[in-house]
Amino acid sequence: MLDLIIIGAGPAGMTAAIYAARRKVNFLVLGLAMGGQMSWSSDVDNYPGVPDIAGVELTKKFYEHMQEYKIQIKQEEVVKVEKKGKVIEVETKKSKYQAKAVIIASGKAPRKLNVPGEDKFLGSGISYCAVCDAPLHKNKIVAVVGSGNSGLDACLFLSQYAKKIYLLDIMPKIIGEPYLRDKVLKNKKISFIGGVKIKEILGNKFVNALKYEKNGKTEELRINSVFVEIGLVSKSDFTKVKKNKWGEIMLFRSTKTNEENMTSEAGIFAAGDCTDIPAKQIIVAAGEGAKAAIATFDYIQKFKS
Amino acid sequence: MLDLIIIGAGPAGMTAAIYAARRKVNFLVLGLAMGGQMSWSSDVDNYPGVPDIAGVELTKKFYEHMQEYKIQIKQEEVVKVEKKGKVIEVETKKSKYQAKAVIIASGKAPRKLNVPGEDKFLGSGISYCAVCDAPLHKNKIVAVVGSGNSGLDACLFLSQYAKKIYLLDIMPKIIGEPYLRDKVLKNKKISFIGGVKIKEILGNKFVNALKYEKNGKTEELRINSVFVEIGLVSKSDFTKVKKNKWGEIMLFRSTKTNEENMTSEAGIFAAGDCTDIPAKQIIVAAGEGAKAAIATFDYIQKFKS
Repeated sequence: MLDLIIIGAGPAGMTAAIYAARRKVNFLVLGLAMGGQMSWSSDVDNYPGVPDIAGVELTKKFYEHMQEYKIQIKQEEVVKVEKKGKVIEVETKKSKYQAKAVIIASGKAPRKLNVPGEDKFLGSGISYCAVCDAPLHKNKIVAVVGSGNSGLDACLFLSQYAKKIYLLDIMPKIIGEPYLRDKVLKNKKISFIGGVKIKEILGNKFVNALKYEKNGKTEELRINSVFVEIGLVSKSDFTKVKKNKWGEIMLFRSTKTNEENMTSEAGIFAAGDCTDIPAKQIIVAAGEGAKAAIATFDYIQKFKS
Repeated sequence: MLDLIIIGAGPAGMTAAIYAARRKVNFLVLGLAMGGQMSWSSDVDNYPGVPDIAGVELTKKFYEHMQEYKIQIKQEEVVKVEKKGKVIEVETKKSKYQAKAVIIASGKAPRKLNVPGEDKFLGSGISYCAVCDAPLHKNKIVAVVGSGNSGLDACLFLSQYAKKIYLLDIMPKIIGEPYLRDKVLKNKKISFIGGVKIKEILGNKFVNALKYEKNGKTEELRINSVFVEIGLVSKSDFTKVKKNKWGEIMLFRSTKTNEENMTSEAGIFAAGDCTDIPAKQIIVAAGEGAKAAIATFDYIQKFKS
C-alpha cells in the first residue's frame, strides 16, 4: 500500500509532489495534463519571483524542479476514488491503487464556447483568464463572452488596459451582481450586447473578428481578442466527497487537530482549482498543494488500518 | 484614504503587493525586514519552479518582481491597527494612515536561545528551519534544541540525512506528543539528552561544538550544526484581532460570501506565518498573500464608509 496518491499534475499537484518527495513518503502522481491550466496561460506575471513568463515555460520550470527529486508522473485517467475501510482505493482506466491518503488536485477546465476557431486561436487571441492576460491588451479592442460575475470582473479589469470592450451574453440582460453590473454600465469603454449566440471566431494568425447571431441576423464584430468567461467545468466527478453548488470540492480545516485542506472524507485531501477556494491562481494552487501535502504527512504518520 | 495597507514585506506581503499593483488599487506596503524569514534561509529548494536558491536570492527575485510594478516599501514599524467605524487606522512610529482594508502579513521570528555564538553562526551552522535545511546535512552530526513536536519532527526528518542527531531539552523528558516521541526513541540515530541548559555555540567559520550545563557540570558536544526548535514569536502584538493560544492570528473563511483570509474584524485580513495556518512555508505564505489580496479587492469594491 502506498502512503499517498496525488491526483493531478498542475501547480497544486506538482507542488504536493515536491513536498512528498522531500519528505520521502512512498507516493505516486497520476496526471494527464502536465501543468494543467498553467500550461496554456499565454503569459504569467503573477507568480512571485518569476516575472513575465509563458505558462508553458513556467510548467517546464515546475517539471525540472520535480526532476531534481526524480518524480514520475503516471499518465492514467482516474475514474474512481473511494474509501474501503480506512484505505483509499484509486481506480484508473488502467489499474487500481491503494493508499493511506490521497490529494485531489485535478483542477478545472474552462467551459468552452464550442464554436469554430476557438481551439485554433487558443493563446493567439482566445483567453480563458482575464486576470492573467488583461495587462497584455493595452489599447486593444476585446470581447468578453459571459456577463456573470467573472465576466463583469473581467470587463472592469480589462477596462484599465483595453481601449474598447464588448460584453456579450446569450441572455438579454446582464446576469451578474448589481454592484458589478452598475459599474460596468457606467464605464464608457464597455458596451453590452445581449441576446446573442456566438457562432465563430475569425482571424489569420491572430483573432480579428467574432461572428454572432442576434434576432435571427448574423453580425460580425471586429476585435483583437476574445475572453471566454462562461464558467468552468469541474474535473472531480470521480469522487463523492462533498461539493458546493458549482461542483467544487468543499475544503475543511480543523484548528484543533491542526489539519488543513481536508475534504468531507478523512484521508482524502484536496488542493487547487478543483476546490472551493475562490482565488484561482497558480501561486494559490501551489501554496494549497504544499498545505495539503503537509497535512497528509501528519495523517500518514498517525495512520492505523 | 487608501484602499489597502499591507503590513509586512515577507513572501505573503510581497505577493499581496504584486496582486494589488496589478489590480491598480491605491495601496501602501509597510515593512521592516525585506523577505522576512525567507531572507535568512540558507537554502530554499521547495519554492516550486525555482529550485535550489539561497533565501536572500529568492528575496531579491521577489523584490525585482515588485519593481516591475514600481512598488515602494515604507520602512516604518507598525505600533497599532485599529478600526474607527469602518475605516482602519494604522499607526506607525512615524505616522498615521487610514485605509478601507488591511492585510496583516507581519510574519514570525523564531524564538532564540540567546546564547553567545548564536547570531554569529546564523546561516553557518545555526538554522531555525529543519524542513528548509535538513537535506543539506547529509552524513553530518547535528543537534536539535527543543523536544516539542517541531523539534521531534525536525529530528525524524533530519534522520533521513544526518548520520547522528542529538536532541536536547531543558526538560528532563521529551515534551512532544507520544506518537512522535516513540518514533524518536526507536530511531538509533537519535540520542536524547534531557535537563540541559545551552550555554554557548562554538566554532570557527562554521559551528563545530555546543556547550551545555547538566547537573551543574559543563559539557561540550562536537556537532556540525544546531537546529533551534523552541518555538516562534508572533510579530502581531499591534492588533487585537482574535488569536489562538500560540498568539497566531485566527483566520476565518466564508463560503457564503466567498471571502478568505478574514480575521475576527471585517476589513482586516491576514496571511502567512503570523496566522494559524500550520504550514509555515514560503510557497504557502505567497499563496495566502494572493488569497488575502483577492479577498480585499471584493471588500474594497463593496466598501461604504
